[in-house]
Amino acid sequence: MALMEISLIPIGTNSASFSSSVVNAVRIIEEKGLKYQVTPTNTIIEGDLDQLLDTAKAIHRNAISNGVDRIVTNISIDERVDKQLSIEQQVDIVQQSLQ
Amino acid sequence: MALMEISLIPIGTNSASFSSSVVNAVRIIEEKGLKYQVTPTNTIIEGDLDQLLDTAKAIHRNAISNGVDRIVTNISIDERVDKQLSIEQQVDIVQQSLQ
Amino acid sequence: MALMEISLIPIGTNSASFSSSVVNAVRIIEEKGLKYQVTPTNTIIEGDLDQLLDTAKAIHRNAISNGVDRIVTNISIDERVDKQLSIEQQVDIVQQSLQ
Amino acid sequence: MALMEISLIPIGTNSASFSSSVVNAVRIIEEKGLKYQVTPTNTIIEGDLDQLLDTAKAIHRNAISNGVDRIVTNISIDERVDKQLSIEQQVDIVQQSLQ
Repeated sequence: MALMEISLIPIGTNSASFSSSVVNAVRIIEEKGLKYQVTPTNTIIEGDLDQLLDTAKAIHRNAISNGVDRIVTNISIDERVDKQLSIEQQVDIVQQSLQ
Repeated sequence: MALMEISLIPIGTNSASFSSSVVNAVRIIEEKGLKYQVTPTNTIIEGDLDQLLDTAKAIHRNAISNGVDRIVTNISIDERVDKQLSIEQQVDIVQQSLQ
Repeated sequence: MALMEISLIPIGTNSASFSSSVVNAVRIIEEKGLKYQVTPTNTIIEGDLDQLLDTAKAIHRNAISNGVDRIVTNISIDERVDKQLSIEQQVDIVQQSLQ
Repeated sequence: MALMEISLIPIGTNSASFSSSVVNAVRIIEEKGLKYQVTPTNTIIEGDLDQLLDTAKAIHRNAISNGVDRIVTNISIDERVDKQLSIEQQVDIVQQSLQ
């Protein structure tokens, strides 16, 4: 199990907001049945490498075919072989150390 | 008010975990009295450009002086002039649209 | 034609250098016959979305199966529908404007 | 000596091109007398941490005050304590290994 962080920026629209692109992305993630968390600057998804990159492809392709001239999609994949990474655990570890 | 996303990776340690670097970073953010959210892959901070880059500098400098040979610090700054960005609002906008 | 920027960091390897991971990545790109440029902080590849994400998958998978406990792979995809993006053009446009 | 990778995306500008933002950024880097390389997806600068973050601040501030409603500035800082990082060396190491 790896974690993927994904954010995408539509360029050339005449709006400074791109929350609708994020909403479209989340719908795609939900269709694929993957666990995710929306954060203030990106969306984090749990899955194996194939699931994650297929989802990234669907999100980018959906955005670029939605009447936008240019898209920059940023992806970061964090994978460990010595243990499973999970959305909850990554935050719990830090918060427990801070107590 | 802008949002900064920060993550840092210590390289050349013989551990696959770097949660202690994140804990140190959060302590620096707390000392600076800034609002933040720890996410599974990075930490997001609210502030103006000076506060955010000073905090990024303190976090990077703390990590590189902590007996690590190499650090890669990734920073993303999202700033709007037409409205204030906030940690809550960014997530609320998406979640309301998904309902 | 889109551009993909890819960098990967092996974690917990006891070495501050990871140029060998970059060399392995470039060999994979060459096997796929894609045009690329190695820069001081990442490698940039030209291709369509399928080619680029397949290459990213192969690079990440090769790195994580090479005796490393953890890998963070960062990918950025820049795609335009109104024109083709190319490695040369992106730099030429800026350099011509600077003359 | 560290390396900083910087890219910035103006949002809501009605144009899919943002090469003019890159040109403005390079002019700021040149005024600061720092060594840099323009790549197809970002600009890489050599310097110490103070120089690099001051330059990032000047670039972001210039872009956000240039009639744009929103800017996302991405920064990555790579610093080693066991040796100096340089723009040439980072690429030479990889190219020599590929011969």
